[in-house]
Amino acid sequence: MTKYRTAHGGTLRGSDIGNEVQLAGWVARRRDHGGVIFVDLRDASGIVQIVINPENNPAADEVLRSLRNEYCIMVTGLVRPRPDGTTNPEMATGEIEVGVSRLEVLSTSDVLPFQIDERFDADEARRLQYRYLDLRRERMSANLRSRSTAIRAMRRVLDEREFLEVETPTLVVSTPEGARDMLVPSRLRPGQFYALPQSPQLFKQLLMVAGVERYYQVARCYRDEDFRSDRQVEFTQLDLEGSFWDQDDVLETLEAIAAQVVKEVRGIEIPRPIPRMSYADAMARYGTDKPDTRFGMEIEDLGEVFAGSDFRAFAATLDDGGVVRGINAGSQGLSRAGFDKLVADAQDLGAKGLVWMVVEDDGSLRSPVAKFLSDRELADVAAKLDGKPGDALLIVADRREVVGNVLGELRLQLGQPDNHDDLHFLFVIDFPVFEKTPDGGLVPAHHPFTAPLSVEEMRTSPETALSRSYDMVLNGAELGSGSVRIHDPELQAQVFEVLGISAEQAEARFGWFLEALRYGTPPHAGFAIGVDRFISILQNEQNIREVMPFPKTQTGADPLTGAPGRVEEGQLEELGIEVRAEVQATWPELS
Amino acid sequence: MTKYRTAHGGTLRGSDIGNEVQLAGWVARRRDHGGVIFVDLRDASGIVQIVINPENNPAADEVLRSLRNEYCIMVTGLVRPRPDGTTNPEMATGEIEVGVSRLEVLSTSDVLPFQIDERFDADEARRLQYRYLDLRRERMSANLRSRSTAIRAMRRVLDEREFLEVETPTLVVSTPEGARDMLVPSRLRPGQFYALPQSPQLFKQLLMVAGVERYYQVARCYRDEDFRSDRQVEFTQLDLEGSFWDQDDVLETLEAIAAQVVKEVRGIEIPRPIPRMSYADAMARYGTDKPDTRFGMEIEDLGEVFAGSDFRAFAATLDDGGVVRGINAGSQGLSRAGFDKLVADAQDLGAKGLVWMVVEDDGSLRSPVAKFLSDRELADVAAKLDGKPGDALLIVADRREVVGNVLGELRLQLGQPDNHDDLHFLFVIDFPVFEKTPDGGLVPAHHPFTAPLSVEEMRTSPETALSRSYDMVLNGAELGSGSVRIHDPELQAQVFEVLGISAEQAEARFGWFLEALRYGTPPHAGFAIGVDRFISILQNEQNIREVMPFPKTQTGADPLTGAPGRVEEGQLEELGIEVRAEVQATWPELS
Repeated sequence: MTKYRTAHGGTLRGSDIGNEVQLAGWVARRRDHGGVIFVDLRDASGIVQIVINPENNPAADEVLRSLRNEYCIMVTGLVRPRPDGTTNPEMATGEIEVGVSRLEVLSTSDVLPFQIDERFDADEARRLQYRYLDLRRERMSANLRSRSTAIRAMRRVLDEREFLEVETPTLVVSTPEGARDMLVPSRLRPGQFYALPQSPQLFKQLLMVAGVERYYQVARCYRDEDFRSDRQVEFTQLDLEGSFWDQDDVLETLEAIAAQVVKEVRGIEIPRPIPRMSYADAMARYGTDKPDTRFGMEIEDLGEVFAGSDFRAFAATLDDGGVVRGINAGSQGLSRAGFDKLVADAQDLGAKGLVWMVVEDDGSLRSPVAKFLSDRELADVAAKLDGKPGDALLIVADRREVVGNVLGELRLQLGQPDNHDDLHFLFVIDFPVFEKTPDGGLVPAHHPFTAPLSVEEMRTSPETALSRSYDMVLNGAELGSGSVRIHDPELQAQVFEVLGISAEQAEARFGWFLEALRYGTPPHAGFAIGVDRFISILQNEQNIREVMPFPKTQTGADPLTGAPGRVEEGQLEELGIEVRAEVQATWPELS
Repeated sequence: MTKYRTAHGGTLRGSDIGNEVQLAGWVARRRDHGGVIFVDLRDASGIVQIVINPENNPAADEVLRSLRNEYCIMVTGLVRPRPDGTTNPEMATGEIEVGVSRLEVLSTSDVLPFQIDERFDADEARRLQYRYLDLRRERMSANLRSRSTAIRAMRRVLDEREFLEVETPTLVVSTPEGARDMLVPSRLRPGQFYALPQSPQLFKQLLMVAGVERYYQVARCYRDEDFRSDRQVEFTQLDLEGSFWDQDDVLETLEAIAAQVVKEVRGIEIPRPIPRMSYADAMARYGTDKPDTRFGMEIEDLGEVFAGSDFRAFAATLDDGGVVRGINAGSQGLSRAGFDKLVADAQDLGAKGLVWMVVEDDGSLRSPVAKFLSDRELADVAAKLDGKPGDALLIVADRREVVGNVLGELRLQLGQPDNHDDLHFLFVIDFPVFEKTPDGGLVPAHHPFTAPLSVEEMRTSPETALSRSYDMVLNGAELGSGSVRIHDPELQAQVFEVLGISAEQAEARFGWFLEALRYGTPPHAGFAIGVDRFISILQNEQNIREVMPFPKTQTGADPLTGAPGRVEEGQLEELGIEVRAEVQATWPELS
């Protein structure tokens, strides 16, 4: 195959016995038994055992004695069966070994900062500092392979459907008053800046104006925000858009992508069609717009049960326009202290309290508040929540948003599976135009190019007005979102007005885009999938950093290269900028 | 297919006659004949003629009267044969037309800043300002489609060969004293900067250290230099690297990519194998390291012919260690003034002069210097340059580099085909380690991670020492370059020393990379292809801007969005930077 090898070690099988092969790879493990050296030789295809008998090996004793883990070596030898009793059925190559006749060290390794072996786990900062060693681990290399496979599968679906892959610019204009952009100073126009794109949104819509009709791109995007554990300053999204398209066309395409990716990465077929659920339904049944539908434990409304109740806490809430709702958390085996903890959790989440009940063996309900409730109420609660002996029933009475949030969170805490063997995709549709802030105000839930069902409704009933937007959810994580876009400049102007964006602001922020809409813009719709999150779920990883080859820390640093860093004054001068004196004053000297 | 259409207009054929279809697209052209309106309806699939008879059309007269070019419309109608004598064999849909029964304007268009029709050509600034209209032209949309096809073909080859696609970071560390980086100020570390990558070079080598073995990426790269006509501040390269690889493995992979791309974009098979030529050979025969081998007109050495000549200009040059060389420019039909122009061109290119000769019908040579040359010399020149009656022979005597450059340029000027119907790929190999600067100094020809054939040779014969690097050339354009890399940290240190990079400088610039090399780095080699240039040649475009969806001008500006622009003070403050006072003083007020 190449001058370094004639075969990949991990692919050798019993059928190769008798062949002389030349292999190259890394020393994953070395054991000495009675003067003979056994090495697990690792390459990208897997691991094969090679056996070096110093007596019939021309390599100098010194070389063999010095052979250490992670040395990169090249060997020639004969594929032979392992001796009786030493075959390893857990290894793909476990039937055979390679008897080495020639060995050459291609390069040596310093003492490792941590073991490559999966059983050892170094802390993350150290893993990132030596990412090139961390990526040699089987788990990490599997993550890289799956990522490549997944993206290839996405492209396959879109290529077959005659989408064009188009590269939109990454040095774009910064939109005044928009979200915080990452900036790139321009040398040819000193003191002026490009922005890195938060998404290709406006450019992909321009491509629709340009008549591209089907666009996709695996796009690098940038987000300068305070980092949460699962965010990165640069990230990847599968961005797509179609003209003469409506919501169904987008969702059907997404479903094909999801199915192909899961098939190629996991080897399984997902149930189709992917279910759709309205935002209102998701909020009522799961208390969230990204329900994890791998398990039930749905929220039930108990308003009818407690209408006119003598239990003041419930009755008063209902009278004030609030709701009383509950979940059946199943058999949690909680002690009194366990329930107290749940009550505290509910309060941390914003509830005034939490009522718990346990279904006794005789079907009756044990609860601190049982004595305040009528027999009818207790029986109806048990019936409504389908209580079986041992089940814990949890009830919250409060404003609708609070109840949904608290029960939704408790539901996840008590019911969410630890792993991702099941994959439950879901489309959440019919999002509202506005979302409520914690203090009860209304803010636009999506970017201002999202088509409303009706502008009239936006004006007259902003709290309930719906937009033509939709999310894709997998196992309780939002994989991405999209919408039908506004293609009529008049409608766009009206929507800006209702969203509280003045004509002047709109012109300053995206005047060039609004002008484009005036030249025969087709109806269009699209979506963007967060690739990092999608792959992390497929790979059972809690954190997207595990599926990114060279991620940054939560403060945006790269422990491997030292990015970001200080740069020389002369370079800044060319760009027309300088570091502020007060920042410079806090710096140590450049080393 | 969607609620907007049941067929793509451009795909309709005679076999569709009798079908009712719903189409959506743009009004490419409108003609009125005897009260009937003919419209060329354009969508991504092509153009189809639709016919609207106001009498049997329910659309209001007003709508029809207002129908203008580039309105986006939706029509329903019957596919029918065109009347006798009106079929158009030049159109794929020329046999049929669609008789419209229903028409809806999806969106209107303002008056166009330029005509979409190919026959009109607007100036480039205006085309870029309205790129979304410019891209509606057939030529531009074909460029976009071919770009997508070409990149898909590249991926197909590499996917089949089990390369992993890996996304390397684009917010990287700026290397002090390296080439000029584009910078991104960090908000979480005020006053510090990321750099945008000039290439993924070090990260792809880290992936080899990580055991990835086969890597590729269609990577966005950034270059902050003074723009030439065919450069862009951001550009795309197909970046690839392989472990346990040597030069042949790289070239074989590149050949497979080139063949697949040409096959899918042009529908032709290129001759294989792609020829290889040494750098020395290319310079001697073509005067350039990127020869256009679509035509001959090779440079011939005339040193033997003129050794000891009585013609002082030639003899003195040879005595001083220079060379006398010539090309047969063929039958150029040049007048005396035409030759004078060539002499001036040669002088502009740095030659002291140019000797021209024309082969007469009787085989003799007509030349201003003929009288200074012996009959034997004249006969030998004619023989050596294979002069046929009418041929123009051009001879330059000077230093080797000057002669090569001048004759190489004249060769292109006089012989290079205008179009790109022929595709001549070439690998140029065995590049020298150093290249000569115009003032005769030596500078490294490649990045410092390129493996030399021999360090000893670098030390003792720097002018002739060769490196293990290679270029891919197409029709006289360099498509990309690559090399076998240094995988031994000791060798790397020695190469730095010979290249004049001190240990301290090396540590400051890429200490983190040099450390990585110490952990069992495999031998590896790779390449990067400039995607924009490759596609521009395939599409017969002189400028890469024509094959980029949203390029910048030569000063890095985007006339469409106004990037780069000024940003607000508060945002800069968060980043720990400010615009220098002297720059700010030259600014007009923010509008």
